[in-house]
Amino acid sequence: MTYCIALRLHGGLVLLSDTRTNAGVDNISTYRKLHVLLAGEDRLFALQSAGSLATTHQVLDRIAHDLRSGAQDSLATVESLAEAALYVGRLGWEIARSHAEALPGGAARATFILSGQVGDEDPDILLVYPEGNFIRASEDKPYLQTGESKYGKFMLDLAAHFDTPITTATKIAVASMISTARANLSVGPPYDLGIYVPGAFVLHQFRIEADSELLSDLRELWERHVHLAVAEMPLVQIDLEPRS
Amino acid sequence: MTYCIALRLHGGLVLLSDTRTNAGVDNISTYRKLHVLLAGEDRLFALQSAGSLATTHQVLDRIAHDLRSGAQDSLATVESLAEAALYVGRLGWEIARSHAEALPGGAARATFILSGQVGDEDPDILLVYPEGNFIRASEDKPYLQTGESKYGKFMLDLAAHFDTPITTATKIAVASMISTARANLSVGPPYDLGIYVPGAFVLHQFRIEADSELLSDLRELWERHVHLAVAEMPLVQIDLEPRS
Repeated sequence: MTYCIALRLHGGLVLLSDTRTNAGVDNISTYRKLHVLLAGEDRLFALQSAGSLATTHQVLDRIAHDLRSGAQDSLATVESLAEAALYVGRLGWEIARSHAEALPGGAARATFILSGQVGDEDPDILLVYPEGNFIRASEDKPYLQTGESKYGKFMLDLAAHFDTPITTATKIAVASMISTARANLSVGPPYDLGIYVPGAFVLHQFRIEADSELLSDLRELWERHVHLAVAEMPLVQIDLEPRS
Repeated sequence: MTYCIALRLHGGLVLLSDTRTNAGVDNISTYRKLHVLLAGEDRLFALQSAGSLATTHQVLDRIAHDLRSGAQDSLATVESLAEAALYVGRLGWEIARSHAEALPGGAARATFILSGQVGDEDPDILLVYPEGNFIRASEDKPYLQTGESKYGKFMLDLAAHFDTPITTATKIAVASMISTARANLSVGPPYDLGIYVPGAFVLHQFRIEADSELLSDLRELWERHVHLAVAEMPLVQIDLEPRS
């Protein structure tokens, strides 16, 4: 499994992905799931992926091939991020379908978060479904997730708003990632962080390593606050008269 | 959906269930999912249920019928909690199977947490699968969950240990429930809390109402600590030189 988060904020985009992949618990590996796609100076695309690793790799190969060969449809020719999402969605759907006989039950499906900026458009994040269609984030819900999205959802809901500063949003995303990795073995470090500032057309990247002091500090702090919150919670007054 | 938690601690058992049921988002209702089963003075059973509400009700009816009719196999005749779990599991499996033609794909399945004490045994909590078999909690992992178990798992992992006092464990369970309900519409208040003290053979019960001051205080406190933790987290030092 996987856990990827993307936040679209007033100040820019925050992207965070884990790197754990598994084909069964006895076949666990580390693969990058945050990819930067270079397709011209007036555009920046970042792709986060969940689902079939093989389909993801084939999609990345097709994207690169279409760019190299100067294909009519490629990330260099799309005129908007939405058009890019439909292009990536079409590749994902076609590739998954080409393997459907060998991999029944949707096993070849992949889901993507496509983020970035094209020309004068505002930066955006789009969730591209395995079926090829997509949704945007909104100002009310300024984030998207793929993969093991349940474990770390509540802190995104609580703390991430459109006006949240990038630095704070990065911390919220890391807290959401840590909580997920603690609860689910299929999500794990290192974590790839990407920050996009509107108009920059480059993605600032940072890898949070598994054995980094930062990560252990963050873990310790987060656990301490959970304990503090529990300690401070009012006691539930339990009715000592049994009702039944 | 549903969210039920049971904790088995040195000091006793803590049970917490939500009450939301839904058959589609346009058919949401409130049903008790924490049931006390009276079957004799030397035994106390509590049943928490997730899955098909109809199957749950039919299981409860069968349990009551077997007790009333003095059946050979009933909660009055079992000699241990494990035997009771197999009995409940058998009822759940038989009833789900009897509806399988009308409700294909396992739609009639239900999962239970059976808790309590029989005679001189230590109190225990058992997760009864739709297939009729069961697992126990352990001292390393002193809790069981059913239903929407992912959203609120990390704080149980972090904070709930076998030696955690009952009062603290109750707060952890409520925090786990609140986080889940905030993230998932299919889980909601009121919440039914049950506390069992070894040897008591009665369950102390308390209902946390949706509009209670307790619940809004707990929510406020929990959200404040998430924000505090985020504020206190060290900044991730982002490499401002783009790598690609």
